[in-house]
Amino acid sequence: MTENMQIAFEKLSFCFETRKFADLRIILLDMEPYDIASYMEETLDDKEMIMFFRLLPKELASDVFVEIPSDSQEKLIKAFTDKELKAVIDDMYLDDTVDVIEEMPANVVKRILINSEPTDRRMINELLKYPDDSAGSIMTTEYVSFSASSTVEDAFDRIRRTGLNKETIYTCYVTDRKKKLIGVVTVKDMLLADKSELIAHIMETSVVTLNTHEDKEQAAFKFSKYDFLALPVVDNEGCLVGIVTVDDAVDVIQEEATEDMQKMAAVLPNEKPYLKQSVFSIWKARVPWLLLLMVSATFTSMILSEYESKLFAISQGVLYAFVPMLMGTAGNAGNQTSVTVIRALALGDVTFKDVFRVILKELLVAFLIGLTIAVACFLKLYFIDNLYNEITIEVAIIVSVVLLITVMMAKLVGCLLPLVAKKVKLDPAVVASPFMTTIVDVLSLIIYCSMAIALLA
Amino acid sequence: MTENMQIAFEKLSFCFETRKFADLRIILLDMEPYDIASYMEETLDDKEMIMFFRLLPKELASDVFVEIPSDSQEKLIKAFTDKELKAVIDDMYLDDTVDVIEEMPANVVKRILINSEPTDRRMINELLKYPDDSAGSIMTTEYVSFSASSTVEDAFDRIRRTGLNKETIYTCYVTDRKKKLIGVVTVKDMLLADKSELIAHIMETSVVTLNTHEDKEQAAFKFSKYDFLALPVVDNEGCLVGIVTVDDAVDVIQEEATEDMQKMAAVLPNEKPYLKQSVFSIWKARVPWLLLLMVSATFTSMILSEYESKLFAISQGVLYAFVPMLMGTAGNAGNQTSVTVIRALALGDVTFKDVFRVILKELLVAFLIGLTIAVACFLKLYFIDNLYNEITIEVAIIVSVVLLITVMMAKLVGCLLPLVAKKVKLDPAVVASPFMTTIVDVLSLIIYCSMAIALLA
Repeated sequence: MTENMQIAFEKLSFCFETRKFADLRIILLDMEPYDIASYMEETLDDKEMIMFFRLLPKELASDVFVEIPSDSQEKLIKAFTDKELKAVIDDMYLDDTVDVIEEMPANVVKRILINSEPTDRRMINELLKYPDDSAGSIMTTEYVSFSASSTVEDAFDRIRRTGLNKETIYTCYVTDRKKKLIGVVTVKDMLLADKSELIAHIMETSVVTLNTHEDKEQAAFKFSKYDFLALPVVDNEGCLVGIVTVDDAVDVIQEEATEDMQKMAAVLPNEKPYLKQSVFSIWKARVPWLLLLMVSATFTSMILSEYESKLFAISQGVLYAFVPMLMGTAGNAGNQTSVTVIRALALGDVTFKDVFRVILKELLVAFLIGLTIAVACFLKLYFIDNLYNEITIEVAIIVSVVLLITVMMAKLVGCLLPLVAKKVKLDPAVVASPFMTTIVDVLSLIIYCSMAIALLA
Repeated sequence: MTENMQIAFEKLSFCFETRKFADLRIILLDMEPYDIASYMEETLDDKEMIMFFRLLPKELASDVFVEIPSDSQEKLIKAFTDKELKAVIDDMYLDDTVDVIEEMPANVVKRILINSEPTDRRMINELLKYPDDSAGSIMTTEYVSFSASSTVEDAFDRIRRTGLNKETIYTCYVTDRKKKLIGVVTVKDMLLADKSELIAHIMETSVVTLNTHEDKEQAAFKFSKYDFLALPVVDNEGCLVGIVTVDDAVDVIQEEATEDMQKMAAVLPNEKPYLKQSVFSIWKARVPWLLLLMVSATFTSMILSEYESKLFAISQGVLYAFVPMLMGTAGNAGNQTSVTVIRALALGDVTFKDVFRVILKELLVAFLIGLTIAVACFLKLYFIDNLYNEITIEVAIIVSVVLLITVMMAKLVGCLLPLVAKKVKLDPAVVASPFMTTIVDVLSLIIYCSMAIALLA
C-alpha cells in the first residue's frame, strides 16, 4: 500500500469512529471505488461494513459494491432493505450484476431479480444463459447504437441522451433495422468529422467481432492483438447482442494466466484470491492431482524393485546415488520445454501445424543442453562426487551419457505432450505439465537401469 | 486462424502474385494492421515483404510496421530509402518508435533518429532514458492537455485541432502553467456537460497517477484494479510527462505472466515469441538453471551414499524403491504451494504482512492433504505394491508416515521461500520455484533415511 493510501485509510477510520460523517463523505468522494472496497474489507467487521456502506455517497455505492469480494457482498445484500438493494442494482452495469449473481446462493439471486427493473431482469436472464467460458458471459448489453442514416449531430445527441448509463460511449455501433451489425464509429472519428456528415460515410464497415459462444480467452486475446477499447458480440445471424469492454478483457487475461499457472502446478483452478479460499477448498483443489501422481509413481517403484539387486551387485550402490539427480534433471528439462510450449500455445505463438518445426527446434536445443549438462556432470562426478564415493571412469561416463539421452527424451516428451493435447482438444496445461514428470521419471529410470546393467554387468 | 482470415489471406496472395495491386489495396483497407503483419510474416519471403510493404496504402503503413516482428522490421528499415523511413516514423506514435528502436542495432537506431523530426527526436531520447521495467518505458508523450480555465467548447476545439495524432483523446489532462497535473476530464464528461461550462468545474481533481520510475508491472496492475483507459505519468515534482494507455498495460500483463511462468520453470525470461527464438538463445535461457539444479543434486547423491549400505541391509532394497515416489510427491506438494503463493504475491492478493496467516493456512491444508495422501499410500503399498515386492506392515507404516511429514515440510518450504524472497526484494518466482525442489528433495531424503534406519534397524 502506498503512503498516501495509508493516510487516507487512517483519516477514514478516524472520521468513522468519531462519527464525523460529513467529513467522511468528502474524503470518500475523492477516492477510487476499488480503494474504498479495500478499506472496508481490510478494516471493518461485518456490522461496521453494513453501517459504512450506508454512509457512502449515493453515486459511489454501486461502484464500491462491485469491487467488494462476493462473501461480503452476500452479507451486505442480506442486510439491505429491498429499497436499498434496488438502488444498488439499478446503478450497476448489467454485466456486473450478472457477475454478482453468479456467486450468490439461490435465495439471494431471487431477491436480486425481484428487485431489478423488468427490462433489466430479462437482460440478466439472457446473459446468465451463456456458458461460463464464453464471450457471452463477459459481455454487457449496455452499448450505444444508431442507424447509418443518422448525422454526426444526431449521434452526439443520442450519446448525450443515453450515454450516462452505457459502459462505453467511445465506440458506437451501427445496426440496420434487423439489428444486424453493419459498422462501428468512434467518438474520435465523429469529433473530427463535420456535424452534418452521415454516419454511413465515416463508419468503419470491416468490423472485428466476437461470437457469443466464442471462448472468452480467445476473445480477450483479440484485445491484446488489436488494441481495441471494446469489441461487439454478435450471434450466429450477425445481429449485435452486446459488447465486451477492455477492462473485462484485462480481468480475463489475468484470470487465465493464473489458471494456467495453477494447472501447471497440478492444482485445480480456483478463482478466489488466496486468503479468501477456505482450507477445505484448497485441499479439494490440490489433493486429486497429488493423489494421482503419487499412485502413478508406483511405476518408478516397480522399475527400481525390478533392477534393484542387479544394480546393487554391479556397483555396491554407487549407481543408486545418482537416481534422484537423473530423474530431477530430466524432470526439470522436460518442464522447461512443456511450460514454454504450453504458454506459446496459449498466446497463439504456436499452433499444431508448427509441430515439426517445434520438434526439430527442441531436439537441437536438447542436444546442445544435454551435451553441456553431460560434460558438466562428468566433471562433477570426477572431481566432486569422487570425494565421498568411489566412482570409476566407467560409471562417470555411463551416468553422463544417460543424462544426455534423458535430457533429449524429456524435452521431446515436453514438447509433444502439449501439442498433442491441443490437437485432441484437451487442455495442454492440465495434460502436459503434471503428467510430464511421471512419464519422464519412468522413461529416465528405465534408460538408466537398463543401460547401466547392459554395460557394466 | 479463422476461416474468414484464411480467405482474406488467399485473396491477398492471388492479387499479389497476379499483380492486381489496385484490388490488393482495396482488400488491405478492410483489414486490421495486425492481420496484415501476420500475413506478411507467414507468407512472404524477405524480398516479397519489402515489395508488399511498399504497396500498402499510406495510412496503413506505420500501423502495419508496428505489428511486424523486430527482425523483419530491421530488414525493412535496411531496404527503405530515407524518405520512406521518415514517412513511416512520422506516422508512428512515439512510444511505438521507442519500442522499435530498443530492438535495433546501433546503426539502424542512428538512421531512425536522423530521419525523425527534431522535436520527436528530443522526445524519443527522453523516453529511451527510462529503465526497461519502469512506467516511463511504456509511456507516450502524445496526450491532450489544456488549462482549467478552458471551456468545454475550447477543449473540443483543441481536440479537433490536435487529436488526430494523439494516442488517446478520451481522457484529457488539465495542467497549470508549470505543467503540474491538476486534474483529468473525460470526453464523456465533456459531452454530457454544457458547452460553456469551465473545465475547472467538471474535471476530476483526485487523480490516480503513475510515477515515471514506478515498476511497469505495478503500473499495469493499476489498470486491472481501476478500469482506466489511460493513466497519467508524473515526475517527482508532480509534473505531467506522459501517459500510459490500456493497450500497453495489457501487453505488460501478458508479458509479465509469461515471464513468471518461465521463471517458475527454471527458464531465464525471453520476450520473443517461441518460433522467433534462435536455438542458441533458447539454450542460453535454459542451461544456467538446469546446470545449477543438476550440481545441487549432489546433495541428494551424498545423502543416498551415506545411508546406502544401511538401508540395503535393513530391507534388501525394498525401502529404496520408494525414494522417487517420496521425493516426487514432496516436490509436487511444495510446487503447488509455491506457485500459488508466487502468483498471489504477483497479483497483490498476499503481502509479507500476511506471512503468519499464510503459514497457518498452509500447515492446516498440508496436514489434511498429507493425511489423505498417507492413507492412500498405505493402502496402495498394502494392496498394490505387495504384488511385486514383499512389504511388511512396518515398512508400509513408515513410508506413509514419512510421506505425511514430507508433504507438510514441503508445503511449509513452498510458502516460506516466496514470502521471504519478496521480503528481501528478490524475485519470488526465480528464487522460490526452481530452488524449492532441491531443498525439498534434500530434506525429504534425510527424513526418510534417518527415520527408516532409526525405526527398522
